[in-house]
Amino acid sequence: MNDFTYYNPTKIEFGKGKEKNIGTYIKEAGYDSVLLVYGTGSIKKSSLYDDTIASLKKAGLEFEELSGIVSNPSLDKVYEGIQIAKDKKIQAVLGVGGGSVADSVKAIAAGAKYDGDVWDFFIQKAQITEALPVFTVMTLAATASEMNGNSVITKEDTKQKYSISSVLVNPIVSVINPELMATVSKDYLAYSAVDAIAHTIEVYFTATSHPNFNSRIVEAIIKTIMETTENLIENPDNYDARGEFAWAATQALNGLTPSGTFGGNFPNHMIEHALSALYNVPHGAGLSVVIPAWMKWYKEKNLPQFERFAKEVFNLQGAEAGIRALEAWFEKIGSPVSLEQADIPREDIGEIAKNAAGLAILWGMGDIYSQETIVDILKKA
Amino acid sequence: MNDFTYYNPTKIEFGKGKEKNIGTYIKEAGYDSVLLVYGTGSIKKSSLYDDTIASLKKAGLEFEELSGIVSNPSLDKVYEGIQIAKDKKIQAVLGVGGGSVADSVKAIAAGAKYDGDVWDFFIQKAQITEALPVFTVMTLAATASEMNGNSVITKEDTKQKYSISSVLVNPIVSVINPELMATVSKDYLAYSAVDAIAHTIEVYFTATSHPNFNSRIVEAIIKTIMETTENLIENPDNYDARGEFAWAATQALNGLTPSGTFGGNFPNHMIEHALSALYNVPHGAGLSVVIPAWMKWYKEKNLPQFERFAKEVFNLQGAEAGIRALEAWFEKIGSPVSLEQADIPREDIGEIAKNAAGLAILWGMGDIYSQETIVDILKKA
Repeated sequence: MNDFTYYNPTKIEFGKGKEKNIGTYIKEAGYDSVLLVYGTGSIKKSSLYDDTIASLKKAGLEFEELSGIVSNPSLDKVYEGIQIAKDKKIQAVLGVGGGSVADSVKAIAAGAKYDGDVWDFFIQKAQITEALPVFTVMTLAATASEMNGNSVITKEDTKQKYSISSVLVNPIVSVINPELMATVSKDYLAYSAVDAIAHTIEVYFTATSHPNFNSRIVEAIIKTIMETTENLIENPDNYDARGEFAWAATQALNGLTPSGTFGGNFPNHMIEHALSALYNVPHGAGLSVVIPAWMKWYKEKNLPQFERFAKEVFNLQGAEAGIRALEAWFEKIGSPVSLEQADIPREDIGEIAKNAAGLAILWGMGDIYSQETIVDILKKA
Repeated sequence: MNDFTYYNPTKIEFGKGKEKNIGTYIKEAGYDSVLLVYGTGSIKKSSLYDDTIASLKKAGLEFEELSGIVSNPSLDKVYEGIQIAKDKKIQAVLGVGGGSVADSVKAIAAGAKYDGDVWDFFIQKAQITEALPVFTVMTLAATASEMNGNSVITKEDTKQKYSISSVLVNPIVSVINPELMATVSKDYLAYSAVDAIAHTIEVYFTATSHPNFNSRIVEAIIKTIMETTENLIENPDNYDARGEFAWAATQALNGLTPSGTFGGNFPNHMIEHALSALYNVPHGAGLSVVIPAWMKWYKEKNLPQFERFAKEVFNLQGAEAGIRALEAWFEKIGSPVSLEQADIPREDIGEIAKNAAGLAILWGMGDIYSQETIVDILKKA
């Protein structure tokens, strides 16, 4: 069992209507002003925007707004938020939306307390030492961003989809109200399921030492995500399934599953970041293309764990059977499992691999994942 | 799925030698003086006491000491600690030991910031609103006290074993070094296993709504505790098993397993607190006496979950088979499963039930657990 530090000070407020208290949560944490960040307006189609504004006003908070955050959120919007936060001397940042909004508020929070270019953190030129406090109200369950310090941002001119991770941008309070997640499309439900599963199996398969306890927790998360996804495809209004899906997705990337493992890394996310940087595919859709291909390529390197996965998750014998079952399940829920299904030109494999190889070096996997190796993996997709 | 707040800001420093940094952890958290609390001297038999003192000195911390904390820790020792903390204007409290030491430091931390009698918190006459910061270095894995705000203290004159729970006394930092836990006797290893399992199955069986995800996490914890206990009985020096046991025990009572469940309570702990208040049996030993008896009495009230338990944990069919298997396992690892095996006079059942019934009222279970009902349960033990 490997040494580790587990520290996750985010308070989760889970349940119906809790978003109506968000102003109070911010005020009680000691802040008087907030930058409200959201997407392209879906929160205005429901009552969520009005409820949020009402809650901020009721708590006596000053606030500014930044809207227009899109899927694979851009650095430009982050700069815009940082400028507002600095100009107006904003004390806290609140994201109301999905993973992209959460990504953006964290980058804004870090950038607002930094004199240099916030991109320095993403290219590891500088370390985050201070950040504005972050709050979130989540409308999509997938990324666990509500309970971690991760942020993934795309620099559009250079097509770099890079990330930061710092407990300083862990949300202070995150609201998870499954009712707010009930309007997600079936496509995005599927992509979210893939993403949550991906978060757990990266380290599950790549760690060179993986305690049984951690494997069991991962299997509990995967089985729950699969069971509730199938339920929600049939019954989108099933509150309990929506809630279980959300909470399992949170546990998938809040620091619990890799604690005590040794040597794990995130190759599927690395390759997918290149895909979605270049083609703007939804993150989960990119992952379901990469994962089965990567599993086929990787399985011999950790055969016992692949056999375990087949048995524990699908009650099947043999590594190959487990991979095929997961691939078939991705396809069944409507997430693409080949480059063609994701409308990604096969002739671009070289360019994708080049982009991913840059990230491999940054993430310390350059020795395993050369451009050639990534080409080999992508050819299986 | 029930509404919940999950908030656990304790930082866990897990791994070999981390206790040698405890002074730094306290200093970095912003404190200059600490009350060091420990037991009856076992930390002086190893190098742990010397290492702790060296670490405090190296960090430039002022410190006082309180030793002599015993199993089922007493209120008198807590008063003593509070007096020292107040007299010397101590800024933080550090417990080095097992669950009893952790219980004691939390009570001292709360009492040191309160003008009244700290027992007020335990009898729910007052609420904790402030506390000294708590730090722990654990030498026994069982209670999860390293990552929760619970403290159980015995008032010896009235034979009341009562508890508090407040995030204000959650440790700021807890060190879990499995090597420090390797000297535990086989008896106490068994009692610890029972305690960790008990923490998960209370809500698992009593919740009127229990999401599959939570059940799976509980089953992951129980299977891990059982597997690692059996391993450690044979191989006390197996670091990995010791570590997995410890981390699973932490997860058993850090707020994760009941999050989203509805209606759970802790009847086995309630009855056991009466047992150990009256007879000073180790907590885990008392629990292994109570649990099978309670399960036999309770099983008809939640038959599907008892059947699930049998199947998922023991691969057996039927509620009764699961109960028998757990009872047999407790006996196999050397924890008592009857009043006789725990040297508790059967003729005292009435008195035990009377003590427990007082706690049942305080814990809001008075309507289910009358003195007569508790007598019925104990007769099965």
